Amino acid sequence: MNPTAERLAFRTEEKKGTTSGMCPGYVQTNMVTLPKEYAFDFLLFCERNPKSCPLVEVLEAGVTRPKTADADIRSDLPKYRIYKDGVFQEEVTNIVDYWQEDFVTFLLGCSFTFEEALVHAGIPLAHQQQDKVVPMFKTNISLEGAGAFTGKMVVSMRPIPNDYLDQTLAISGQFEHAHGEPVHIGNPADIGIDDIQRPDYGEAVEYNDTDATPVFWACGVTPQHVALQAKPSLMITHAPGHMLITDEVDPYYRS
Amino acid sequence: MNPTAERLAFRTEEKKGTTSGMCPGYVQTNMVTLPKEYAFDFLLFCERNPKSCPLVEVLEAGVTRPKTADADIRSDLPKYRIYKDGVFQEEVTNIVDYWQEDFVTFLLGCSFTFEEALVHAGIPLAHQQQDKVVPMFKTNISLEGAGAFTGKMVVSMRPIPNDYLDQTLAISGQFEHAHGEPVHIGNPADIGIDDIQRPDYGEAVEYNDTDATPVFWACGVTPQHVALQAKPSLMITHAPGHMLITDEVDPYYRS
Repeated sequence: MNPTAERLAFRTEEKKGTTSGMCPGYVQTNMVTLPKEYAFDFLLFCERNPKSCPLVEVLEAGVTRPKTADADIRSDLPKYRIYKDGVFQEEVTNIVDYWQEDFVTFLLGCSFTFEEALVHAGIPLAHQQQDKVVPMFKTNISLEGAGAFTGKMVVSMRPIPNDYLDQTLAISGQFEHAHGEPVHIGNPADIGIDDIQRPDYGEAVEYNDTDATPVFWACGVTPQHVALQAKPSLMITHAPGHMLITDEVDPYYRS
Repeated sequence: MNPTAERLAFRTEEKKGTTSGMCPGYVQTNMVTLPKEYAFDFLLFCERNPKSCPLVEVLEAGVTRPKTADADIRSDLPKYRIYKDGVFQEEVTNIVDYWQEDFVTFLLGCSFTFEEALVHAGIPLAHQQQDKVVPMFKTNISLEGAGAFTGKMVVSMRPIPNDYLDQTLAISGQFEHAHGEPVHIGNPADIGIDDIQRPDYGEAVEYNDTDATPVFWACGVTPQHVALQAKPSLMITHAPGHMLITDEVDPYYRS
């Protein structure tokens, strides 16, 4: 299935599941939609924290069709989450009834793209093998704040077999619009993670720490985490794992 | 003289001249100050056009002290220009009386930094040898608009001796926060410039077009040019050639 067909299936609600593994090679993005009064501060926050918030595209107030995807962002993702004053309200399959003309939408790079490249290179990913959602952790790594948006970085963790560490760094480093190089390798306590078996988001994965090393990447949950602490009157995001599939082929897969 | 001493001389109005050639190796920046209502659109414009508007730093509403310079941006540049509704009002040596708490300030990379590196490498720059302000031209190169901010790119032109072309590209390409690689090399008509001896800003330079080739770089006048067409109620910029000298040493000069 190509991006157009998958997005149509989401629009008609024929499909509602995760986009993980769909349309290999095509860039998938996180989505954050905010009223325009918050847009400058959030854009500046992304600009100041590019590893956590790699900007793929910004849709100006009222714009519903991205340039990177022939899509309607109100209906063409499988699932959305609605937050009011920083409190989760509900999960919905489209946001047509919530849409306001002053909504600014941010599309941010996500790790699905570099995960595909790692798997393609023969590097095993424990969470995929164990059929889990990648484990994510709050850290003590401070972000550079902008206006009301400030806080700590959230990271995803993948245990990488020691023989594959160099190759993993080299490959993920090429995805600068999808979190790029890891932010930390090794001891979880160094970045404020007390228990690697108790993630804040996603699910714990099993691994043997004599053969594998935990590797931590900046995570697309960070902007949601930070935005919720800022308590905007209304915020809409994709549901975790339920991304926008764009029509852009990642440069890594071109030619 | 170091950046601190030079900025103090501007603050006390002991000096009011161009910063060209001052504090070699230190990053100098263009400055654009706008009321917050325009800040999201202008920041997005910079994000979408990084060659013309390379962001060095954004100072949030009311902030007068940058992180990149131990300075007060209301007084520590030699000269400023005030524009109302897109119309030039006056040139002033400080903006203390104009300052508003909702002012957002953008510091953008400038070509002074890579010019120093070219000269250091032995590449002659005609405008410096002829003691002229570098010639600048409006082009037909469209920029990607954001809100009210849209228009064409302004470029600076330096005739480069043919033997030095490769070296010039290699050096300037390393200054990604100061316009980086040229946007065009050769025939001025290709980018909509009718007469290379009649620049839109700066002064014409003489050169022999059998020995040298005109090379065009994205220019820091572009954001001013575009912002003025957007006619913001109030806009303050540095006076051309009268930059903020920061405390940051360009990575090119480090180690």
